Amino acid sequence: MRRFEHGGNVYAHPGALDFSASLNPLGMPPLARRALVEGVDVFEHYPDPACQELTDAIARFEGVGKGEVLACAGATDAFARICSAVRPRRALTCAPCYSGYEQACVQAGVDLTWHELCCEDGYLLTERFAERIEEGVNLVFVANPNNPTGLRAKEEVIRSCLERAREVGALVVLDECFVDLAGGHGSNALLGEFPNLVIVKALTKTYALAGLRVGYALCSDGGLLSALRDAGQPWAVSVPAQLAGVASLQDVGYLAKSQELVAGERARLGEALQALGLHVLPSDANFLLFEGPEGLHGQLLRCKILIRSCDNFRGLDSRWYRIAVRRPEENDLLVRALERLLRGGTEDKTGGGDA
Amino acid sequence: MRRFEHGGNVYAHPGALDFSASLNPLGMPPLARRALVEGVDVFEHYPDPACQELTDAIARFEGVGKGEVLACAGATDAFARICSAVRPRRALTCAPCYSGYEQACVQAGVDLTWHELCCEDGYLLTERFAERIEEGVNLVFVANPNNPTGLRAKEEVIRSCLERAREVGALVVLDECFVDLAGGHGSNALLGEFPNLVIVKALTKTYALAGLRVGYALCSDGGLLSALRDAGQPWAVSVPAQLAGVASLQDVGYLAKSQELVAGERARLGEALQALGLHVLPSDANFLLFEGPEGLHGQLLRCKILIRSCDNFRGLDSRWYRIAVRRPEENDLLVRALERLLRGGTEDKTGGGDA
Repeated sequence: MRRFEHGGNVYAHPGALDFSASLNPLGMPPLARRALVEGVDVFEHYPDPACQELTDAIARFEGVGKGEVLACAGATDAFARICSAVRPRRALTCAPCYSGYEQACVQAGVDLTWHELCCEDGYLLTERFAERIEEGVNLVFVANPNNPTGLRAKEEVIRSCLERAREVGALVVLDECFVDLAGGHGSNALLGEFPNLVIVKALTKTYALAGLRVGYALCSDGGLLSALRDAGQPWAVSVPAQLAGVASLQDVGYLAKSQELVAGERARLGEALQALGLHVLPSDANFLLFEGPEGLHGQLLRCKILIRSCDNFRGLDSRWYRIAVRRPEENDLLVRALERLLRGGTEDKTGGGDA
Repeated sequence: MRRFEHGGNVYAHPGALDFSASLNPLGMPPLARRALVEGVDVFEHYPDPACQELTDAIARFEGVGKGEVLACAGATDAFARICSAVRPRRALTCAPCYSGYEQACVQAGVDLTWHELCCEDGYLLTERFAERIEEGVNLVFVANPNNPTGLRAKEEVIRSCLERAREVGALVVLDECFVDLAGGHGSNALLGEFPNLVIVKALTKTYALAGLRVGYALCSDGGLLSALRDAGQPWAVSVPAQLAGVASLQDVGYLAKSQELVAGERARLGEALQALGLHVLPSDANFLLFEGPEGLHGQLLRCKILIRSCDNFRGLDSRWYRIAVRRPEENDLLVRALERLLRGGTEDKTGGGDA
């Protein structure tokens, strides 16, 4: 895949069952769907530039003050605003991680350094990352759970990062886009203690609203949040994004049902893949990273199944793949296709296997 | 109004009849509405990052090559990409003009100079503007028709600007967001001759898709267009924006009907306002700029009518107002409200009148 190419491009592979984008396997909440269909006539108007209803809904959902919320056009928009408003000289992140941090840095002309995570640790984020936050680093990007690994770092490690960043005057961007589908709690409780913390989340994944571009940033530093607001476009969050966002956040039962499905299917899918001899990393999220034979991406595409080749993730290569945890019947299709490919003796059966 | 506050904020004034945003008076084309309702399930997927169908539709509609089109999240996104990709030292625009150019320059740290248009010329863009494009200017923003005046510059003036800009190595951003509702032709024929020309258009206004954020840039310099693509966010144009954009551009009869309505109602509304003693500037677009007593914006709001106070347009002041040309019955409501206010002897009847 090209440098900044992402998963989820169903347009390049029409008709394929998409495991490459890590979205809520239940899809869009029915309340959001209804809000969109019923609200279609409002799409004519400019969006509310203040995103008032959406901001209120996010604040309620997250248990934070309205003044700590900035609605954005997805997490990508938040990363771009941060780089543009902060104009850091040097940023730090880890590898492997989401390539969107690098893309935001490249666009803003920010020098980015990578801390390579260890494959032997299962690419877990450890205290060694916090130690890399040194004088001269202005901005730190870290995801919890991380993408594409799905691994959640220990709370002490996140705290170490924040403390270290505070010492050197750096801002920490904590990408918690996958925390809600993973279950468990995020880091909102740290917002008050650390004004140098910006938590970024996206409704994109949690509520399968990827086509609408909606997410948000949380921060207790009102001045910074205001600078992030000014760094974006006046109507960045569209009317459908605001409508669907509000409706989704109100559908509390939907998230619980989604978390339950993800937890169960993640375990089942992971075991099935391991039984096929694939090297599956432990994951806390709604996706799994595994190592397998090269060429699997193309072979599965011929079976009309799209998975995420991780060859353009820094620190990984063409033997690594990421798959979303989907609904049981869909996961079964993937497992059966893999069985046929791996046990049926196809071409291209090189590479790692369970290495 | 605040520095970068725009019209169309119906959320701050619920229930008001909105003359402050200059959208197609017929609203969203029925084909677009249907595409949105029928396509709601696709909103779950990431948007096509290449905007292929939309790019094709734009190229067909504009009679240009696909390689000359970049779909954006509205004109605002195009202006931001241009400032970010070109990183000019000095930009030039005129006053009054759309404040979005200034906002894009401020965000990108670009030094912007204004050429003040003459009230005596009816704020028409003349050769004097072209003469201001001198050594050191890297970027020129000009709108045709201009906003908030609605005036269309002579073709020779646009050509002079482009020639002058080519001499000094400047890029000209020609904002033609209102050209389609104005009728007549735009400047696409100049694209081949001037690789330093970027034409920006928005479906926002032409098809009343303001809530969806969809527009585009046209340019014959493939390298520049590619830089503009890289300067934006990977999924900037949402799924509903792409769907509605494609459907709207296919609805050819709708645009002709809209143009006819606008031309007729613009003349009728302009005459009615002049008959009330207001100083109405000639307009080629779907809106009118007029000078009247101060306080009219607030007085009309009490009648549940929202117009655009032009007090935050550089070169204008609180005696200037912009109104969209809407449907006959809506325009009648505005005229009757103005009659009551201006002839009925209300408070606050200070200021210019037909000055």
